[in-house]
Amino acid sequence: MLIDLFPPTVLHALDIAGIFVFAISGALLAVRKNFDVFGIMVLAGATATGGGLIRDLIIGAVPPAAFTDLGYLVTPVVAAVLVMFLHPEVERINRAVGVFDAAGLGLFCVVGTTKAFEYGLGLPFAAVLGVVTAAGGGVVRDVLANEVPSLLRWDREIYAVPAIVGASMCALLIQADALNPVTSALSAATAFVLRLCAIRYGWRAPRAWHRRSATAEEP
Amino acid sequence: MLIDLFPPTVLHALDIAGIFVFAISGALLAVRKNFDVFGIMVLAGATATGGGLIRDLIIGAVPPAAFTDLGYLVTPVVAAVLVMFLHPEVERINRAVGVFDAAGLGLFCVVGTTKAFEYGLGLPFAAVLGVVTAAGGGVVRDVLANEVPSLLRWDREIYAVPAIVGASMCALLIQADALNPVTSALSAATAFVLRLCAIRYGWRAPRAWHRRSATAEEP
Amino acid sequence: MLIDLFPPTVLHALDIAGIFVFAISGALLAVRKNFDVFGIMVLAGATATGGGLIRDLIIGAVPPAAFTDLGYLVTPVVAAVLVMFLHPEVERINRAVGVFDAAGLGLFCVVGTTKAFEYGLGLPFAAVLGVVTAAGGGVVRDVLANEVPSLLRWDREIYAVPAIVGASMCALLIQADALNPVTSALSAATAFVLRLCAIRYGWRAPRAWHRRSATAEEP
Repeated sequence: MLIDLFPPTVLHALDIAGIFVFAISGALLAVRKNFDVFGIMVLAGATATGGGLIRDLIIGAVPPAAFTDLGYLVTPVVAAVLVMFLHPEVERINRAVGVFDAAGLGLFCVVGTTKAFEYGLGLPFAAVLGVVTAAGGGVVRDVLANEVPSLLRWDREIYAVPAIVGASMCALLIQADALNPVTSALSAATAFVLRLCAIRYGWRAPRAWHRRSATAEEP
Repeated sequence: MLIDLFPPTVLHALDIAGIFVFAISGALLAVRKNFDVFGIMVLAGATATGGGLIRDLIIGAVPPAAFTDLGYLVTPVVAAVLVMFLHPEVERINRAVGVFDAAGLGLFCVVGTTKAFEYGLGLPFAAVLGVVTAAGGGVVRDVLANEVPSLLRWDREIYAVPAIVGASMCALLIQADALNPVTSALSAATAFVLRLCAIRYGWRAPRAWHRRSATAEEP
Repeated sequence: MLIDLFPPTVLHALDIAGIFVFAISGALLAVRKNFDVFGIMVLAGATATGGGLIRDLIIGAVPPAAFTDLGYLVTPVVAAVLVMFLHPEVERINRAVGVFDAAGLGLFCVVGTTKAFEYGLGLPFAAVLGVVTAAGGGVVRDVLANEVPSLLRWDREIYAVPAIVGASMCALLIQADALNPVTSALSAATAFVLRLCAIRYGWRAPRAWHRRSATAEEP
C-alpha cells in the first residue's frame, strides 16, 4: 500500500536514512559503554533493524526485510565505522542526530503500521506494530547494552507518545480509506514534530500517583 | 483440543483473567522502577503476553494470539491504569495478587502445552513450551526492567517447578489419551496449589553444591 | 548441503558436542550468579540453543531444530546437573572448556551459514546468521543473567572475529561452488584456531578512537 503511494526509490532512500540514524544512536551508546569495534557494529545493527525485525517475525514476513536488502546490512556498518572514528564530532552534533532520529521515528511508525495491515493484522494491532517498528530498536539497543530502556523511563523526553500518535493516525486513515501520499506523510510529520517538541520543551509523561508509598524507589 | 474441552467463553474468560494478573505484576514492577505511564503499559503488556508470544513464534502460529484478540491489548492497558492510580492499594493486597498469579501460572502451563501439541510438537517440547507460556512473561518483564529474572534466582520461591509439574502432567495425560476437562483442570490445579504452597512455606530449589568455592559470588 | 557432505551421525554427534560445551558455559555463569537448579538449567539451555533458535525463527524454519530433536533438550540438562555438582572441578578445567567452546564456535558458524543459505537467504545474510548461530547463544546467556554481553565488551578476547572469518569463508566457498567436506571442515577449523589464538595471546579488537572525549565512561 504505502509501497504504491510513493516511488519505491524515494521510500527506500527514506528507509535507509532512518536505518542510518538509528544505527548512529546504537553506535554512540556502544562507544559510551566501551565496546570494541564489533560490539559497536552489533549494537548499531541491532538498533537499526531490531524494531522491523520483531514486526516481521510477528506478522510472519520471513525472512525479514533486514535479511533480504543489503542496504540494511551495509548502512549500520558504515554508521558504526563513522561513529568509531568521529564520535566526539557526532556527539557535538547531537541535536542534529536527535532531529534525524525523530524523522526516523515518524517514518517507521507509518511504514510499520502499513506493512502490518498489509499482512492482515487488525488495525489496532497494526498500530501497535507501527510503534514497535519505530521504538523497538531502541529497546533492543538498551537491553543488549544492559541499560534500563530509555523508552520506559520517566526521566526521558517522551518517545512512545509521538509514535503512538503517528501510528494511530495512520491506522485511522486506513480505516477511513483515506491513506494517500499526503495523509501518510502528514502522519509521519505529526510524529516527527511531536518528538521534536518533546526534546525542545522537555516533555515527559506522568508517572504513577502516590510516589511516596513505601514501595517506591526514588531514582 | 483444550479448545474443545471447555466452552470457548469459559476458556476465554480464564485466559483474560490470567493476562490481567500477569499484567498487574508487570505494572507493579514498572511503578517500582519509576517508569512513566507508557513504560507501565509496555511492561504490563510484555509481561502478560510475552510467554504466549514466544510460544507462538516457535510453533509458527503467526500472527500470534496476542495480535489477533483485542482482549490481549485492552486488558494490560486497564491493568496498567489501575496500578498507576492504585498501586499502594494493589501492593497491600499483594497476597491476593500472588494467588491470582498462581492461577494464571496453572492455566497457562496447561493451555501452552496443549496448543504446542496441537501444532505438531513432540510432547517433551510441548511441555517445555507450556512452561515458557507460564513463566516466559515474567522473564521478559525482568529483562526489560534490567533486573535479574526472578525465575532464575535462588532467593525466590520456586516458580518453575509448579509450571514444570503442571505441564508434564498435561503432556502425560495427552500421551495416555486421557486429557479431558477434568484431568486438564486437575493439571492446572496441581500447578496452582504447588505455587501457593511455595509462597506460603517459602519453598526454594537447591543451588549448586560447594558454594564456598572461589568462583562463587555470595549475594 | 552440509547435511549431505558428512554422514548424518557424525554431524549430529558434533552438533550435540557443541550444544554441550555451550550449555556448560551457561551453567557456569548461572552458578556464579547464584541461580537455583532450574535457573542453571534454563541458562544452560538458552545458551546452548539460543543462537540456532534465533536463526531458525529468522529463516522461517519452524518449529526450530531445538524443538524437534530430543538431544537439544537432554544435553543442556545433563550439562547443568554436571556443573551443579562439579562446578569447582569444571572451573579448574576452564582451559579445556575454552577449547571445546572454540570448537563449537567453529562448527556452528559453518552449520549456521549453510542452513541459512539452504533456506534461500543471500550469502552475506547467510554469513551473518552463521555468526548469530555461533555467538547468539552467549548473548542470550548474558542478557538473561543481566550482564553486559561479553561478545560486545572490549576487555574480552575477540569472539566475533573468528566467527565472522569462518562464516565468510564458508559463504565464499558456496559462492565458488567449492563447499565440500574438506573445505567446510577447513572453514570451521580456521574459526577454531583463530579463537584459540585469541585466548592464548589475549587478542582484543580495537575500541573507538579518542577515548578521552567527555562522553567516554572509563571502565
